[in-house]
Amino acid sequence: MAPYVPGEQPAAGAKVIKLNTNENPYPPSPKVAEAIKAELGDSGDRLRLYSDPKALALRQAAADVYGFPVEQVLHGNGSDELLAMLFRAFVDEGQTIAYPYPTYVLYETLAHAQAAKIVTYDFDRSFALPKQLFGCGARLVFVASPNSPSGTTYASQQLRELAASLKDGLLVIDEAYAQFAGENNLQLAKELDNVAVLRTFSKSHSLAGMRLGLLFSSARVVDGLWKVKDSYNLDRLAIAAGAASLRDTEWTAANTRKVIATRERLTKSLSALGFEVVPSQANFVFARMKSAEKAAGAYRFLKERGILIRYFPARLLDDGLRITVGTDAEIDALLAALKEYLARG
Amino acid sequence: MAPYVPGEQPAAGAKVIKLNTNENPYPPSPKVAEAIKAELGDSGDRLRLYSDPKALALRQAAADVYGFPVEQVLHGNGSDELLAMLFRAFVDEGQTIAYPYPTYVLYETLAHAQAAKIVTYDFDRSFALPKQLFGCGARLVFVASPNSPSGTTYASQQLRELAASLKDGLLVIDEAYAQFAGENNLQLAKELDNVAVLRTFSKSHSLAGMRLGLLFSSARVVDGLWKVKDSYNLDRLAIAAGAASLRDTEWTAANTRKVIATRERLTKSLSALGFEVVPSQANFVFARMKSAEKAAGAYRFLKERGILIRYFPARLLDDGLRITVGTDAEIDALLAALKEYLARG
Repeated sequence: MAPYVPGEQPAAGAKVIKLNTNENPYPPSPKVAEAIKAELGDSGDRLRLYSDPKALALRQAAADVYGFPVEQVLHGNGSDELLAMLFRAFVDEGQTIAYPYPTYVLYETLAHAQAAKIVTYDFDRSFALPKQLFGCGARLVFVASPNSPSGTTYASQQLRELAASLKDGLLVIDEAYAQFAGENNLQLAKELDNVAVLRTFSKSHSLAGMRLGLLFSSARVVDGLWKVKDSYNLDRLAIAAGAASLRDTEWTAANTRKVIATRERLTKSLSALGFEVVPSQANFVFARMKSAEKAAGAYRFLKERGILIRYFPARLLDDGLRITVGTDAEIDALLAALKEYLARG
Repeated sequence: MAPYVPGEQPAAGAKVIKLNTNENPYPPSPKVAEAIKAELGDSGDRLRLYSDPKALALRQAAADVYGFPVEQVLHGNGSDELLAMLFRAFVDEGQTIAYPYPTYVLYETLAHAQAAKIVTYDFDRSFALPKQLFGCGARLVFVASPNSPSGTTYASQQLRELAASLKDGLLVIDEAYAQFAGENNLQLAKELDNVAVLRTFSKSHSLAGMRLGLLFSSARVVDGLWKVKDSYNLDRLAIAAGAASLRDTEWTAANTRKVIATRERLTKSLSALGFEVVPSQANFVFARMKSAEKAAGAYRFLKERGILIRYFPARLLDDGLRITVGTDAEIDALLAALKEYLARG
C-alpha cells in the first residue's frame, strides 16, 4: 500500500516561492495569535490539562458563524482526519466507495487502508460531474467542490440530485476550497440525511500549520463518527486558534477577496500566454499546455528557479500545471519565469 | 460499539481538585511557552504553512535525549493515535490481540474498531504478569508498564522473555508513566525486532493539552506505521512544544522527583488510614477499600466536595480508588476528606 505523498515542503529558511500546496499567501487573523497566547498564559500552565474532547469552543463558533446546529458539527485534526473517520465509521472491508477521477488523492489512499473497493469515473475535459456517479450504489461517494486539481465546482441542485440517487450511500462533499467559490452546500448538509460537508482551516483561514477541519452533517452521521473519533483529537491551542479564526469573518473575507482577484488576473495572464486554463473557483488554477513534455519541462524549469508548483505525472493531468494563487508579487515572478520558459520554445 | 469514555473534565473555571486523569500538577517547562511563542512570531504568519509531516525537530530531540536512531522514532497526536496506528498497520479483521485485565481501556476500544479478536488474561490481586500471555500467539500483545490503574511495573527481563515467546507477534509496551518508574524498556525496543515502546507527553511532560506521543521500535515496525499515518498529524506548535520539552530534561526530572515524593507520602498516609495500596511506580495510586460499596461511596463523597478521583465500577476494580498524585496541598485536602468519610463509618 502506497502512503499519500503530500506536496514538497522546502526546508526552513530556503528561499522559494511556494505555489504547490494551496496554502494561503496571507497571514491568519491577528485574533488567532491572541487566542493562542491567551490560552498559553505566562507559564503554559493550562497545557498540563487535557484538551476538551468535544472541542465545544470551536464547534460552537462554527455553529454560530454558519447557522448550523452544534450537535451536527464535528471537529477533526485537519479535514484529512475527518475523511479517515468517515471510512472507519461507514465502510467495511470490501464495500464500495466511488469518486470521479482526477480528484484529491487521499480518497484512494484511505480506501486502500480500509480495504474498500474503489470505483472511479473519469471526468471529461471540462470536469463536468460524471453521470455514472448517480445511483452508483456506493457506500460513500466523494465529490470535492471545488475539485482539486481542476478548481471546478458542482451546482448544489446537481449535488442534491446525486444525494437523492444514493439511497443507502452517503455523499461527502469536500469543501476544502469552498470559501473561494460562489456557492457552497452547507444547506444540503442541513436538509438531507445523507450528505456530509467537509471544511478545512488550511486554505481560507491561513491555518494549514494548525491542523483543523470541520464536518457538517445529519445527527445520524455525526453520531456514527463520534464512535470512531480519538478522544482528544485536537490540542488546546488548535481549538482556541480555530474558534478565533472562525469568528473573525471579516479577516477571512478580506483575504479571500484578495486571493480571488489575483486568481482572476493569473487566469487571464496564463490564457494570454497560450495556456488552456480550467475556470477555477478555488485558490489555485489548473493550466494546460500543448503536451505532457512541455508541462513537465515547465515544472522543472520553475523548480530550478526556486518556484514550486504542482505537477501530476498522471493520466488526464500530465499536460497541466496546478498553480496556487500566491501574492501578486509571487504571481508576477511566476508569470515572468513562464514567459522565459515559453520564449525558449 | 461503545466509544472510549475519558475521565470527567470539569468546566473551565469550576473549582475542583482534579485527581482523576493523571495529569501532572506542575506546569510544563518554561521552554515550551518560549518555543510556541517563537514559532508563532508576531503575527502567526508561519501557521499558514503546513507542518512538517516528518516532525523532524521533535523526533530528533527524542533521538538525542534517549540515544535512539531517529528513523526508529515516530510521532503521534498523543500516544492514543500511535496505538490506533498499530492496530491499522498490523491487525486485520478477526486477528487476535491480547492484554492482561484490568489495564488501559483504549486497547479494547481500538480492537473493536478494527474488528479484532480480543483475548484477555486476568491479573491476580498483586498484578503480576499473567503467565498465559507468554507464547499466546496474538498479533499484538499490550503491556502497560507501569500499568493503569494499578501503577505496577514489569521487569525488563520478563518483558524480554515475553517478546521472545511471541514469534510473529509484536509486544507493545505502553510506557505512558515510565518516567515515574525505576526502570524502562527503551533498550528492548532498540535491541529486539518485535518490541514497540510508547511514550506520552501528557504525564511527565505536563503537556496533556498538547496531544503528543512517541513510539520507539525497530525499523520494520516504524516503516509499517508510516504507511498508515495521517500526513500532517501534528501541528506546528505541538512539534515545537514537544521538542522544547524533551530537551529540558532537568525540568522534567525535577517535577518527576516532586511527584514521586508526594506519591510515597500519599501511599503511606492511605495505608495508615486502612487502605490496601498497590505499590505504584506511576503518578497515581490504586487504593483498595473493604468493599465496592465503600469505594463507590468514597468516590461520591469526594465528588460532592469538589475532589475528582477515578472510580471504575468494573470487575477486579470496584473496591478501589485511582488517585492521581497532585500537589502536596491537593493531596492534603484529599486525605482530610477521606478521613472525614471514614469517620462516618
